[in-house]
Amino acid sequence: MVTSSRHGRSWRLRSEQIVEYEIVDAPGLLDPDNPALASVPGTAGRSGTRVVVLDDAVEALYGERIRTYFDQRDVPVAYLVLPGSEENKTVERALDVVDKLNAVGTNRLSTPPLVIGGGVVADVVGLAASLYRRGIPSVRVPTTLLAQVDVGVAAKTGVNYGGYRNRLGSYSPPPLTLIDREFLATVPERQLRNGMGEIFKMALIKDRRLFDLLAEYGAGLVEARFQDPGPGQDGVPGTVADEVIGRAIAGMAEELEPNLWEKNLRRSVDYGHSFSPLVEMRALPELLHGEAVAMDCVFSAVVATGRGLLDAADFTTVVEVAGRLGLAPAHPLFCDADLVLEALADTVRHRDGRQNLPMLTAIGEVCFLDDVTEAEIKQACATMADLLDARPADAR
Amino acid sequence: MVTSSRHGRSWRLRSEQIVEYEIVDAPGLLDPDNPALASVPGTAGRSGTRVVVLDDAVEALYGERIRTYFDQRDVPVAYLVLPGSEENKTVERALDVVDKLNAVGTNRLSTPPLVIGGGVVADVVGLAASLYRRGIPSVRVPTTLLAQVDVGVAAKTGVNYGGYRNRLGSYSPPPLTLIDREFLATVPERQLRNGMGEIFKMALIKDRRLFDLLAEYGAGLVEARFQDPGPGQDGVPGTVADEVIGRAIAGMAEELEPNLWEKNLRRSVDYGHSFSPLVEMRALPELLHGEAVAMDCVFSAVVATGRGLLDAADFTTVVEVAGRLGLAPAHPLFCDADLVLEALADTVRHRDGRQNLPMLTAIGEVCFLDDVTEAEIKQACATMADLLDARPADAR
Repeated sequence: MVTSSRHGRSWRLRSEQIVEYEIVDAPGLLDPDNPALASVPGTAGRSGTRVVVLDDAVEALYGERIRTYFDQRDVPVAYLVLPGSEENKTVERALDVVDKLNAVGTNRLSTPPLVIGGGVVADVVGLAASLYRRGIPSVRVPTTLLAQVDVGVAAKTGVNYGGYRNRLGSYSPPPLTLIDREFLATVPERQLRNGMGEIFKMALIKDRRLFDLLAEYGAGLVEARFQDPGPGQDGVPGTVADEVIGRAIAGMAEELEPNLWEKNLRRSVDYGHSFSPLVEMRALPELLHGEAVAMDCVFSAVVATGRGLLDAADFTTVVEVAGRLGLAPAHPLFCDADLVLEALADTVRHRDGRQNLPMLTAIGEVCFLDDVTEAEIKQACATMADLLDARPADAR
Repeated sequence: MVTSSRHGRSWRLRSEQIVEYEIVDAPGLLDPDNPALASVPGTAGRSGTRVVVLDDAVEALYGERIRTYFDQRDVPVAYLVLPGSEENKTVERALDVVDKLNAVGTNRLSTPPLVIGGGVVADVVGLAASLYRRGIPSVRVPTTLLAQVDVGVAAKTGVNYGGYRNRLGSYSPPPLTLIDREFLATVPERQLRNGMGEIFKMALIKDRRLFDLLAEYGAGLVEARFQDPGPGQDGVPGTVADEVIGRAIAGMAEELEPNLWEKNLRRSVDYGHSFSPLVEMRALPELLHGEAVAMDCVFSAVVATGRGLLDAADFTTVVEVAGRLGLAPAHPLFCDADLVLEALADTVRHRDGRQNLPMLTAIGEVCFLDDVTEAEIKQACATMADLLDARPADAR
């Protein structure tokens, strides 16, 4: 309502925005007979060239199939290939996308760009789309495990800036995200473990069943690249792959939906993301996101155990299952108390002056702490060093 | 609600965001005894350095008073001075703001940056704040007429990019905007006329009373720089200045509130903004925004008159009142049919394939057209050339 009263004249505006988006299981996306990719919003309606952004890995593996797919359907497409690694999650790459949108004359609504790739290009294209003409829709096809269970479910876009992870970004989910597990067949093992880092986090904060699935089948899923075993072959059933991915997506969606714009700064999904952002940035390109997240999960569990919140047996299980997933519990930078304290200080600014640290009270349950001390951090860093030393030499 | 059903498994998220913001009349903001500037959100709560961005004109005229004001109140402030002209509404300047926010360690919520200046810095700081940590609040103090009645009421932020006006931006209104008419005392006359361009537009689309005020007092308001006449002096009463600014703000607020995110692309406030964006960019730095908007108002009125929507007497009044406000009706670029057609083509992309052209049916009333032809545009360009020729030589 607009109000205007004399003496302290003021005008107040209040408006309500409803945001809806959907993540859809869409197997066989690149099959020539599958209309899903071509029938996403925009291609059926008004004409116009559509920008399709691929990351370099997708270009190398699927570039030809993607071009054939759109050619056969006479969809006018302009392609842009961007590098997919974390160092390229930058303002400059987002502006490359904007340049391409300008070059083809992208409409406000009816020719949404399509991004097929990992989390980095999804975030970069998402940011570009959210800024272009103050926001146009886009469509995501996440092709890595991390992107399918994390970036592809989130409402967030972002780029790194000034040495800080996701320092610039927006909350503007693409209306549609298409998930095709078949892409995982070509994802390198280390990238699959990277994705497992986020699934591991989700299991720890809210899903004991998912944790048990990871403990039992996690290593096998990575080995089989989340694909169904062939006829007569042994292996992890495809239903388990579906259940693991599905539970991870559903858990994320449940946590995000009531707090999409993060008005509440106590977020259990921030577990694993309190200390790791700066560590990950400082370690670039050595550590992948999910690897750093898994280490933060362990670090936080160390603090929780030190407080008596988490019992020692559960702590041991946490470290052990991380190991089965091929995720290291620690890194030298997590033993550097100065760096971890610096990371915490920025996280406190991000959480507006409070620590709001999610901490495990059991596997599948969290509480929040606001009073973790410098001494506790230093102690936890020392424990991380012990964990590092305890690993077999070939795993370090 | 999160749904997950087998066979065509999908997850749907739906969330509602309520956005509220306020524009407050706040005279005497820089008086040392006025607590308003220092008591805006953030300074009373948690500590932390506050970024204050000034444009170069404000720095030159008020920089010392602003520093004294905050010094006396012991508010820790880091200043950033940015150029205020349209050519500086760029990504680079927005990143300058981000660098400053990083340098002082700005919190998520409780140390909102403050921008004191014209529309360019308001838009640039607004964009930086909307991206920083995916959105932090900010406070606007618009110091020019254009910024007070237009930018300062809008929910939009933005920068120019790739030769297009406001190509990148967001809808993210600062929670608080403070309006102090006293700043207008030092605004150059041409800049006041520039602001009058937007008030003129608002009058034309919905406010006959405002139009009549402009016709009678507009020139006098510019001459007196919207200030009250001194004791015993003749001049336009301060109540008229308040009424003109107030009606312009209220009109804008009324139009924006039900359509804050522009889901409806038929916007009467787009009057004057259909052809002008590209003309303004091509004419940079010659034309100011409000000057280009006023020309577009005239151009659109030419089209409406050609259609018989607007009668000839009203058209003459429109051009005549623009003249009294010191606003030229035309510019050589508005006589260039190729350029105007190019501008329309981009506007059609911005309005997702439709013209959605607001057109006057009377002074204070609009309809929308979707079928303006190339021939009509060419005819209107010819009429603009006639208007240009008809002006007295010293006004060209």
